[in-house]
Amino acid sequence: MLNEFSLISRYFTRPSQSDNRALVGVGDDCALLVPQAGKALAISTDMLVEGRHFFKGAEPLALGHKTLAVNLSDLAAMGARPRAFTLALALPAIDEAWLAAFSEGLFALADRCGCELIGGDTTRGPLTLCVTVFGDVEAGQALRRDAARVGDDVWISGTLGDARLALGALRSEWTLNPTELAEARRAMDWPEPQVALGLALAGCAHAALDISDGLAGDLGHILERSDVAARIDVDALPRSAALARQRPEIQRQCTIAGGDDYQLCFTASSRARETVLAAGRTTGTRVTRVGTITAFDAHASEPRITWTDAGGESLALALRGFDHFDD
Amino acid sequence: MLNEFSLISRYFTRPSQSDNRALVGVGDDCALLVPQAGKALAISTDMLVEGRHFFKGAEPLALGHKTLAVNLSDLAAMGARPRAFTLALALPAIDEAWLAAFSEGLFALADRCGCELIGGDTTRGPLTLCVTVFGDVEAGQALRRDAARVGDDVWISGTLGDARLALGALRSEWTLNPTELAEARRAMDWPEPQVALGLALAGCAHAALDISDGLAGDLGHILERSDVAARIDVDALPRSAALARQRPEIQRQCTIAGGDDYQLCFTASSRARETVLAAGRTTGTRVTRVGTITAFDAHASEPRITWTDAGGESLALALRGFDHFDD
Repeated sequence: MLNEFSLISRYFTRPSQSDNRALVGVGDDCALLVPQAGKALAISTDMLVEGRHFFKGAEPLALGHKTLAVNLSDLAAMGARPRAFTLALALPAIDEAWLAAFSEGLFALADRCGCELIGGDTTRGPLTLCVTVFGDVEAGQALRRDAARVGDDVWISGTLGDARLALGALRSEWTLNPTELAEARRAMDWPEPQVALGLALAGCAHAALDISDGLAGDLGHILERSDVAARIDVDALPRSAALARQRPEIQRQCTIAGGDDYQLCFTASSRARETVLAAGRTTGTRVTRVGTITAFDAHASEPRITWTDAGGESLALALRGFDHFDD
Repeated sequence: MLNEFSLISRYFTRPSQSDNRALVGVGDDCALLVPQAGKALAISTDMLVEGRHFFKGAEPLALGHKTLAVNLSDLAAMGARPRAFTLALALPAIDEAWLAAFSEGLFALADRCGCELIGGDTTRGPLTLCVTVFGDVEAGQALRRDAARVGDDVWISGTLGDARLALGALRSEWTLNPTELAEARRAMDWPEPQVALGLALAGCAHAALDISDGLAGDLGHILERSDVAARIDVDALPRSAALARQRPEIQRQCTIAGGDDYQLCFTASSRARETVLAAGRTTGTRVTRVGTITAFDAHASEPRITWTDAGGESLALALRGFDHFDD
C-alpha cells in the first residue's frame, strides 16, 4: 500500500530535465528558486475541483495535461517563460492507474515547456488539484491587464468557443456529429497554453490576458483596469470550422460567453500590426484582429464593450463571462 | 450577491502594507516577485481540506490564521524570511460572515509576518484551502533536510503534543479539565510559526524541518535524507504542563506521534550550543536539546531512531508519524 510519501516518490519525483533547475526541489520543506538575472518571477495559482472544472471520471491523462495547461496559460498571458510549478492535490483514495496516467499527462506538458515540478502536497479529500506556476519575465515587458490604450487593436489567438461547443453537446443543449464532437472535446480536454506567442508578444503588445471565463467577461477585466472601452466585431471572432457550421446564436454564445478557451486576448498599437502577424507566423499561431480600444465615458452609462456585426452595426447582446459562483 | 470577482475585491484585495511589495499583485494573470539581491525564493505549498485538516464548522478566524501559519512554518524550517503568498480556495457557498472572519485571521498573521497576498483563485467546491508561500533566503544558509551530521545535537522548539492532546480529548480518547482543554485547543487552532527562530538559526543549525506529522515521522525524513540515525531521549521531549499531567503513554503518544505541532526540529554542532540557546533567548522561544545524531548502519537492520529514557535505556516504541492516506 502506497502512503503519502511513497506516492510522492513514485509519481512526482524525477531527475531534473533542464539546465534551469531549482536549487532544492521536491522533498524539503521549501523549494529554492532564483529568477534569471534581471528578471522577475511571474506567479499564478489555479484550483480545479471535480464536478466544477472537470467531469467526475475525467480521463486522468488529459486531466494531468489540463491542470498544468491552465496555469501555463496565465504565464503566457504575462509574456513569461515557464520555469517551475508546485502541485497540491487532494485524492479520495490512492488509485495507482489514475496517478500513473495523471502524472504522465502532467509531465509530458511540463517537459515540453521546460517547467520543473519543485514541490507539492498530497492529502485525502474530494478530488481537487491546485497548481502554482512560476516563470521568468522582464518586469518592464510583462503583459499586464492595465496597459490597453485608446486606438489599440484588439487581437485573439487561435479560435474561440470550441470547449463551450463540446460542453453544450455533452449537456444536450445541442447536437454535434461524431467528428465535430471529437474535435470540440479535444479543445476542451487538451487546451494548449499559448506560451510561445506570449513570449513573442512581450515588449510589443500592450495589455493581455488569457480567456478562461469567456471573452465578454475577460476582456471586461482589461477594459476596467485600463479604464477604456472597446468595439468588437462579433463576425470577426475566430472560430473552428465545426463551430462555424452551427446556428448563429450558438456561434455567438460559444465565442463570446464560452469558457475554457485559454487563448490570449491582447491589445497592441495599430502600428504594430506587422509585428503581431509576424509573431503569429513565427510561433505557428493564428492571430486575428477583432476590434479596437476606445475611450470610456463614465458618465454616458454605456457598456464597456460595444458588439458590432461585420458591417459595423451595434448588436444588443446580453452575454457575460463565466462566474464560478453562478450556478 | 457577491460573485467571484467582487468576493476577491472585497475580502482579499488590500493596499500593500510593506516596503517589500510585489511589482504586480492580486488582479492580473500573474503576480511579479523578485527575491532580495543575492537571495533565492523559498517556496512551499500546503492544502487544507475540511474534515481532514480541520473540523467541519471550524471557527473561520482561527482557520484563516492556521491556513497561513502552517505554510509560514515551512519557511521557518528553511530559515527564510516571509515575503508573499497566494491563496486558492474552494467554498461550498458564499458566506460573508465566514469570509470576513477568515480573511481577518489570515491577514492578522500575514501583517505580523510582513507577508503580502499577491494572488489567488476562488471557486465553488468542498471547503479546501491551498496556500503557496514565498520567502527570501540565502541559498547557502538555507536549513535543509539533508544536512544533519553525525555528532550533531537534536533540538526541538517550543513544546510538542498539545494539538494531539486536544484532538484526543475532542475524540473522547481521554478527558481533560476545561482549562487544559482550552490550552490544548489553542495550540491546535492557533499554531505559531517559528519564523524568528528559523531566521536566527540560518547559518548556525545544520538540518531543520517543521514537525507537522509527528516527531517520529518527520525526524525520520531528516535522518533518511542525511543518511544518519539518531538517539532521542523521550523523557527530554518538551511538553506543556497540561500534557505533563497526563498518563505516561498519552504523553509519549502526543509528543512522539502527534501531528499539527509546527515546532522546529533541527540539528546543530555540539560546539554551537551557546549560539542555539542565544537564538532561543533572542526570539523568546524555548529550545530543548533532546538527542544526538549517530551513524546509520544500513546492514544492521536497526531503526533510524533509537528512543531512550532519561537514563539512556532503549525503549521499544511502535509509533510513527501521521500519514494523510492512513485512516
